[in-house]
Amino acid sequence: MQLNLPVAVRWAADGRAVELLDQTLLPGREVYLRLETATDVAEAIRSLRVRGAPAIGVAAALGLALEAARHTAAPRDEFLRAFDAAYAELRRARPTAVNLAWAVDHLRRIADSLGAADNGTIACRLYGAATQILDDDIAMCRRMGEHGAALLPEGTVRALTVCNAGALATSGMGTALAPLYHAAAQGRAIEVYACETRPLLQGSRITAWELARAGLPCTVVIDSAAPLLLRDGAIDIVFTGADRIAANGDVANKVGTYSLAVHAARAGVPFYVVAPATTLDPHTATGAGIEIEHRDADEVRRGFGALTAPADTAVYAPAFDVTPAELITGIVTDSGVLRAPYAGGIERAAAALHGAEATR
Amino acid sequence: MQLNLPVAVRWAADGRAVELLDQTLLPGREVYLRLETATDVAEAIRSLRVRGAPAIGVAAALGLALEAARHTAAPRDEFLRAFDAAYAELRRARPTAVNLAWAVDHLRRIADSLGAADNGTIACRLYGAATQILDDDIAMCRRMGEHGAALLPEGTVRALTVCNAGALATSGMGTALAPLYHAAAQGRAIEVYACETRPLLQGSRITAWELARAGLPCTVVIDSAAPLLLRDGAIDIVFTGADRIAANGDVANKVGTYSLAVHAARAGVPFYVVAPATTLDPHTATGAGIEIEHRDADEVRRGFGALTAPADTAVYAPAFDVTPAELITGIVTDSGVLRAPYAGGIERAAAALHGAEATR
Repeated sequence: MQLNLPVAVRWAADGRAVELLDQTLLPGREVYLRLETATDVAEAIRSLRVRGAPAIGVAAALGLALEAARHTAAPRDEFLRAFDAAYAELRRARPTAVNLAWAVDHLRRIADSLGAADNGTIACRLYGAATQILDDDIAMCRRMGEHGAALLPEGTVRALTVCNAGALATSGMGTALAPLYHAAAQGRAIEVYACETRPLLQGSRITAWELARAGLPCTVVIDSAAPLLLRDGAIDIVFTGADRIAANGDVANKVGTYSLAVHAARAGVPFYVVAPATTLDPHTATGAGIEIEHRDADEVRRGFGALTAPADTAVYAPAFDVTPAELITGIVTDSGVLRAPYAGGIERAAAALHGAEATR
Repeated sequence: MQLNLPVAVRWAADGRAVELLDQTLLPGREVYLRLETATDVAEAIRSLRVRGAPAIGVAAALGLALEAARHTAAPRDEFLRAFDAAYAELRRARPTAVNLAWAVDHLRRIADSLGAADNGTIACRLYGAATQILDDDIAMCRRMGEHGAALLPEGTVRALTVCNAGALATSGMGTALAPLYHAAAQGRAIEVYACETRPLLQGSRITAWELARAGLPCTVVIDSAAPLLLRDGAIDIVFTGADRIAANGDVANKVGTYSLAVHAARAGVPFYVVAPATTLDPHTATGAGIEIEHRDADEVRRGFGALTAPADTAVYAPAFDVTPAELITGIVTDSGVLRAPYAGGIERAAAALHGAEATR
């Protein structure tokens, strides 16, 4: 089938702006923003109009390159001042997003290394580097899709996912959803069950929307009911994304992932994490070393408008949880599928896989 | 400590009206309604101003007795017409609530058995019978509280619950929450973790409110994070209510109960169901025979106002799930604690327990 995938972030056709799908308006309205300055891009990142670590990194890189291009005719000191201000503003737009810092630091190093060149040369190199980040992201998603699609069972596939690790979290076809899109594009029958994902409902607001737009059938599942689908044989495979993967293969991802992994193991349903190799963190030995961010209590007490709990009640709402490696069937990366145990750490396993693929 | 428990349903002080806490206004406002006719009570049941099977049964009984009392001075045929109309209106207010049908049928049989008596005599007997249903409910809650409190470990108790099986689901101190209220009243330190309970959020809207009013510390937990508390040793005991208990001890209760039972077993945390003996259903052999009601998709797609999923997306939102007997540590009834296996069926086990208690 022909997929009708939404695009989270891209260059405008004239190359003079960044185009973003405003995700704060989903699922009600599909509106693309044309952003012509780094300040506009930073605002869009801060206000979650674009979200998902890969997509944020791409948006920031494009925004920074755009800002340099806008000032090529200016005197050198003004050009540099504009670049520095844009770099700083973008880098602090979401302080915890690793891809964002990596992307703007990468462009900053390129600019610094070209100290003697003229403004136009620097701007062109930055434009090229930003476009490379965008293209790499698209390519990584495609490769994760290919590797993951090879894991699907015969016949109609009923896949369960949580949160949004789809096209709208990247500039390509997503991470967790990439195997499903890849298979659907090749004519396979795919049905997706999307966990609602309290408190911010990324599953029902974003994943269900992008799947419907792409043309794949989707059923929204309240989080506490997903274990029943697994128990009752209604799910063939689980795909989730990852926020960070420790050296021993423990995975930090959206809260709810751990519970799904326990229920999948109990039901004998394969449970795969899909994430690019850049998500591997060799400096964190195990999941116990991963700090878990907690959400603001008012996202639970008055999410989406109404007061749904006493205004001053205590709330337990971690944003992420850690799933131990032994509950994970495999980790689908852009280089192939990693499986525990990871002798010498997961990065060495990934490097071996990458080397094997490169020499194939 | 002195508990400040809210009351879901009671006679007005003058005995000429039913007083109900309007639960549709929680957690924002605490408003008691004075209802002087059966029609008013039926409306309150239909619109969920009072909910919870025991509380609904009590409200209906009080409403029907009230209607008889209003017409004692009328001619006999008018008195009977008013009674029949009130009976029919109350009985259909929520067709699936077993306690409601049982309560109004009980009063109808009493009225029918007094055919020759005068209006005033019949009305007095109905008033007495309705008050007995109210008192029995209060007493059953108290006994469940005593039996359940004996199960609590030493020291500060951290208990997890789901949905609302508290004071506001009964006319007394609740079912699942009764052991905790009982222990707190005796000076024990009790901390309650209340699962939010999508899609209708009875945990955050109602349980958290009634616990705060009673004076017990409560933390609202998003449903998908409760397994983390169990895994991390942050919960000492789980108490849930029950909607129906099959002969083999399988329990139908609010969706999410099954997942909590699996995670409690995995973590070695005791998992108790608290329900009066009237919840036992000897005519249903196992949980597989219990029909599960599904909620309206719009409760998920546009719950509490905002559109949080594509307007036409499919939704999987069962209202209840079935927890197998082997995952349940025990069933706390008003006669004592039942434990699997239930040779000869759970009703025989309950009867034996009841007999043992009666002869003690």
